[in-house]
Amino acid sequence: MGMGVEEDNSNSIEEEIGKALEEAKELHEAAGSLMNNSANEEQSLRHRAQSLDSSLRRLRSLLPHLDPKLADKLEEDLHRARCLLTDGDAASFLPAKPHGRFLRMFLGPINVRASRKDIQLKVKEEYNSYRDRTALLFLLFPSTLLILRSWIWDGCLPAFPVQLYQAWLLLLYTGLALRENILRANGSDIRPWWIYHHYCATVMALVSLTWEIKGQPNCSKKQRGVQLFLQWAMMQGVAMLLQNRYQRQRLYTRIALGKAKRMDVVWGETAGVDGQLWVLCPILFVLQGFEAYVGLLLLRTALDGVVSEWQVIFCGFLLVLMAVGNFVNTVQTLMVKSRFKAKMKRSRSRHEF
Amino acid sequence: MGMGVEEDNSNSIEEEIGKALEEAKELHEAAGSLMNNSANEEQSLRHRAQSLDSSLRRLRSLLPHLDPKLADKLEEDLHRARCLLTDGDAASFLPAKPHGRFLRMFLGPINVRASRKDIQLKVKEEYNSYRDRTALLFLLFPSTLLILRSWIWDGCLPAFPVQLYQAWLLLLYTGLALRENILRANGSDIRPWWIYHHYCATVMALVSLTWEIKGQPNCSKKQRGVQLFLQWAMMQGVAMLLQNRYQRQRLYTRIALGKAKRMDVVWGETAGVDGQLWVLCPILFVLQGFEAYVGLLLLRTALDGVVSEWQVIFCGFLLVLMAVGNFVNTVQTLMVKSRFKAKMKRSRSRHEF
Repeated sequence: MGMGVEEDNSNSIEEEIGKALEEAKELHEAAGSLMNNSANEEQSLRHRAQSLDSSLRRLRSLLPHLDPKLADKLEEDLHRARCLLTDGDAASFLPAKPHGRFLRMFLGPINVRASRKDIQLKVKEEYNSYRDRTALLFLLFPSTLLILRSWIWDGCLPAFPVQLYQAWLLLLYTGLALRENILRANGSDIRPWWIYHHYCATVMALVSLTWEIKGQPNCSKKQRGVQLFLQWAMMQGVAMLLQNRYQRQRLYTRIALGKAKRMDVVWGETAGVDGQLWVLCPILFVLQGFEAYVGLLLLRTALDGVVSEWQVIFCGFLLVLMAVGNFVNTVQTLMVKSRFKAKMKRSRSRHEF
Repeated sequence: MGMGVEEDNSNSIEEEIGKALEEAKELHEAAGSLMNNSANEEQSLRHRAQSLDSSLRRLRSLLPHLDPKLADKLEEDLHRARCLLTDGDAASFLPAKPHGRFLRMFLGPINVRASRKDIQLKVKEEYNSYRDRTALLFLLFPSTLLILRSWIWDGCLPAFPVQLYQAWLLLLYTGLALRENILRANGSDIRPWWIYHHYCATVMALVSLTWEIKGQPNCSKKQRGVQLFLQWAMMQGVAMLLQNRYQRQRLYTRIALGKAKRMDVVWGETAGVDGQLWVLCPILFVLQGFEAYVGLLLLRTALDGVVSEWQVIFCGFLLVLMAVGNFVNTVQTLMVKSRFKAKMKRSRSRHEF
């Protein structure tokens, strides 16, 4: 009888395994057909999105030939259609921006584009909080080094903590450059310069690692370059904290508006944060001036022959380049914003009539 | 009359823009509903895949209580079901492996998992060809440095080319570690050690960048560490080329079998490449021995007091650690493979009776 029970048991397990194999086959087929179906539907949406995109372009090019009043009204309609297409659910069916060499080099041909708008916003939010966390360290790390230098180390930075800091910078900037490339692939309108800026900073961190930290005697003179570099980094921390505050508020405005009515996202883009921009910008300009100043000082130290390594010249040159680029791009952003605002005012006053 | 034509024109443009706005709205809605529908269907497939996964686990745990002959047969069925589930179209509905700290640090919360099996295989193929390209450089770069050292540079390596090489190593290993983490997230069964190994190599490249390349006098003695490091790197290039050849052939076998009959993928995994494994392994062991030897030499140079920087001790220690880890993991891989083969033989001989 014990035998009989065991056989029953075996039979039922055999049956269950047969069923499981059957279920595995069904699941495989169901998954395959779901993938095929959605691939087909996505393909057709992709065609529609692309043809709508090109007809919006064509219509926009026709506007200047019309009566100005009518053109203004039609431009608004066109803008609404464009916002719906690029900020709405259909956005993921527009052709993706190519991923760029940087991402391909580090990640290979993997797709980093999130298909849903809410995930894209989450990615952006996480990017902002990453920047926040690092901005604090950006402020604390170099200032601790500088304070210890005058209090404990007697004016002479030891090599290891400085190199640790430079390695951290390298890690940080590589991460930022990767994340910004991912944001771009997800349709963010981040200016290419800010990504180039982080490439420059990555290269500078790498070069500074090979930069020998000389000890006594005559330490403070030999370490002048490193000291300037740390001062600049501290300022950079302040700039990042301020920029983060501004960017986050701008994003929250976007999300809030997006929830209310997705197509009005761009309309309200500058609402509520304009005042902050006029505090942020002068500070940014001062920091950019300081960046260029540090760069020039580094170049002078190198040319005076106090510190003659190529790393000093290279870093000095990069700092000046970054300062100029930052300045030009901040001004351009301001100009775009004020042009946009003037247009909004015009359109609002027209509506009020 | 000219006026009339223009008005006609304006009207038709206005109409077209109205239509475009309508189409944008429709597209937005169609995209939203497609996303919702597929999200729902995916959710249900995910449930089914997960419950099948857990029942396969439960059934497997029951097998040891059965009659050995029956258990062997049922185990094969279970294995077929598992292969279908994890290697078939349903695989993308199994819960994803968590991305790991490394990916999150560099990329944020972006999803790097390809939803389709053919894309996953493409990612793996691209990874292999990336390794191929870099393996060649791995061989050429350090050997060029060593040849120039004895022919032109009179036994004394200049700092810049060595640092350039170290920066390239850093870039390369970061890229490899990122790509391997991505492969893992896509369900690759790569052993965790090989990823840790690349973390170690990344750290070593970073540390070696801070390692001062001393010049004359007594150059060859002071640069002994760097020279050993370059020799090890050359050997590493040979190992990579051989491993790539083996891995690529293994992947092609998998793809070919997968096309014929997906569920037999694992059955044929070792077919056709066994002979190569017995050429590859002795070479790998020799290289691992050399790696440990270089590490120990570095440690001795440091302890003898010829080169006293911490970087030398650190790199020596890392090299020994990497050699031991590589050896242990190669042996484990071999053991798994031979156990698998023995089992296959048993099951085949049973089928032949």
